[in-house]
Amino acid sequence: MWYQNKLTELLGLDYPIIQAPMAGGVTTSRFVSTVSNAGALGMIGAGYMQPDELRFQIREIKSLTTRTFGVNLFIPEQPGISEEGINEANELLQPLRNTLGIKGELPTYENGSTFEEKVKMIIEEKVPVCSFTFGIPSEDIIRELKKHKIIVIGTATTVNEAVINENMGMDAVVVQGSEAGGHRGTFIKDAQESLIGLMALVPQVVDRVSIPVIASGGVMDGRGLIASMFLGSKAVQMGTAFLTTIESGAHEEHKNAILQATEDETMLTTVFSGKPARGINNQFMKELKHSEHLIAAYPIQHYLTSPIRKEAARQNNPEFMSLWSGQGVRMSQRQTVHELINGIVSQVDQLLKEF
Amino acid sequence: MWYQNKLTELLGLDYPIIQAPMAGGVTTSRFVSTVSNAGALGMIGAGYMQPDELRFQIREIKSLTTRTFGVNLFIPEQPGISEEGINEANELLQPLRNTLGIKGELPTYENGSTFEEKVKMIIEEKVPVCSFTFGIPSEDIIRELKKHKIIVIGTATTVNEAVINENMGMDAVVVQGSEAGGHRGTFIKDAQESLIGLMALVPQVVDRVSIPVIASGGVMDGRGLIASMFLGSKAVQMGTAFLTTIESGAHEEHKNAILQATEDETMLTTVFSGKPARGINNQFMKELKHSEHLIAAYPIQHYLTSPIRKEAARQNNPEFMSLWSGQGVRMSQRQTVHELINGIVSQVDQLLKEF
Repeated sequence: MWYQNKLTELLGLDYPIIQAPMAGGVTTSRFVSTVSNAGALGMIGAGYMQPDELRFQIREIKSLTTRTFGVNLFIPEQPGISEEGINEANELLQPLRNTLGIKGELPTYENGSTFEEKVKMIIEEKVPVCSFTFGIPSEDIIRELKKHKIIVIGTATTVNEAVINENMGMDAVVVQGSEAGGHRGTFIKDAQESLIGLMALVPQVVDRVSIPVIASGGVMDGRGLIASMFLGSKAVQMGTAFLTTIESGAHEEHKNAILQATEDETMLTTVFSGKPARGINNQFMKELKHSEHLIAAYPIQHYLTSPIRKEAARQNNPEFMSLWSGQGVRMSQRQTVHELINGIVSQVDQLLKEF
Repeated sequence: MWYQNKLTELLGLDYPIIQAPMAGGVTTSRFVSTVSNAGALGMIGAGYMQPDELRFQIREIKSLTTRTFGVNLFIPEQPGISEEGINEANELLQPLRNTLGIKGELPTYENGSTFEEKVKMIIEEKVPVCSFTFGIPSEDIIRELKKHKIIVIGTATTVNEAVINENMGMDAVVVQGSEAGGHRGTFIKDAQESLIGLMALVPQVVDRVSIPVIASGGVMDGRGLIASMFLGSKAVQMGTAFLTTIESGAHEEHKNAILQATEDETMLTTVFSGKPARGINNQFMKELKHSEHLIAAYPIQHYLTSPIRKEAARQNNPEFMSLWSGQGVRMSQRQTVHELINGIVSQVDQLLKEF
């Protein structure tokens, strides 16, 4: 059957579908476990999570499903920090704070990463799958994870990045096309040069690596899934399609924005986190568009803009939230996780029958 | 059979493959007729051609094939011209002229278009297919062409552009993904906002138009063709894959550049023509990268840079040619047109058998 292959076997999935590990509260335990229970791979977006918070969620998910699930971590970066730089970046954000009526203290940032702590905990908790974004962990960490039978999955936006993932021992690699919503996983060249459309990217990667390739970016339904598999991928990773499901923890205004958007309304921006990411263009992005060179480096900018986005969410104001979205928005639907997954599977069955 | 549908029937093709109408000497009569004789659709890139030149080529092709072929025209634009603006743009180009040792007079530009003359001639010559880039011709012209049984095909980079093409009476529409080499066909919104990956673009267009959709951008082999068809397209249009064939009229250095390039080496640039187009990054692009806001409008810039590119071609210097290329470069091969087309067809047969 088209939906079973070496990757679905390795991951113990019914279908070659992975729910993208979206950060920012989208991947609640209920949501992730529902995806896993439906036969796809549920993933926790733990990039910005604290270890305790993550441990709590892992245990919660274990109580809700016996199927495979995973955790995604961001490879840490230690930006150079100057008080001056942070002040400058905060100054740029002041008009947005004023618009939303945010008083209180200005946010600050201190270097320090909980990455290794989270890896240790993932091993302790025997999480079945661990994926990585923004680079590749040390060989020691990869070896340690694999020793504990944890399946490791990397992220690549170019052929070279995919090859490095394979050489470093990753069991599979997510190949992120330019269509994808949220952060670009690019870690070698400039992100702008690494915006390769999925149609061109997947076969070029498949020709050069032997580990299973997972296609991501713009895949929203059975058509995208079967197209990606004919290009040579063994599964797809879908973010935007899962974000608008009933069970996802995304803010209602975020879901609404995606459900109403058109494919030419998403843009790449660095203003929310310091790293390029694709979201629906809004006032936040427009106001800082011409100051992108002045904002703080990743992840400092993330922490500086965090209170603004939280307050915007509280006020149900999508103009100041980060409305991450891929380019397949017109295909988004308000439906349950089961409806999404079953719909994809029966659409593929139908397409293969008709062809 | 997978290779026959209402579009291939309309066009009288053996296979759902269209050779992209590349301008700049690529589409010689030998090349176009070879493509048509192989059962795909050969197209003349006549955007910059003079009517007499085009008529000569149409007659030559008619003597070489009895199969369907077509002509692509650019919808004319009348930019505001000032001597000052042209002088400024020429000044920016002076260092490049010096590098290549170009003496002679500076190029000039006069408004005026031969578009309607070429349309009239296409009707007189009974060319089977006429496609358009950079917009849509007047209703009168479309009506006139259709009255003479000429099949008209438009170009779209967004859903809205595709819908307009359908509403204006086009028989089919080429949907150009962000992966595509050469000029962006965008004619409504900003070109940057209209860079939609093919994986996301095709199904969203198919859901909103009823005319046949032709997928283009990053498609290089049987995998891309069958993937595009599962997304809902009725054919693919391929440029880069055809450009490196033995028969194509592209400069050897252009072919070599594509054969050696990697997927992350192409860039969008406006420096050659005034309109954004994707090509392999070279010295010409790098030297003018930070002056893109100072160059002349399309098509003036095309005429101003033309002598530089011609001299670079004469000197076999790819650093100052326009090396148009899509993002699928690693899949390019030096082969004959027949090998390319037959290879695609048997690859699709094989993929469908294995699946």
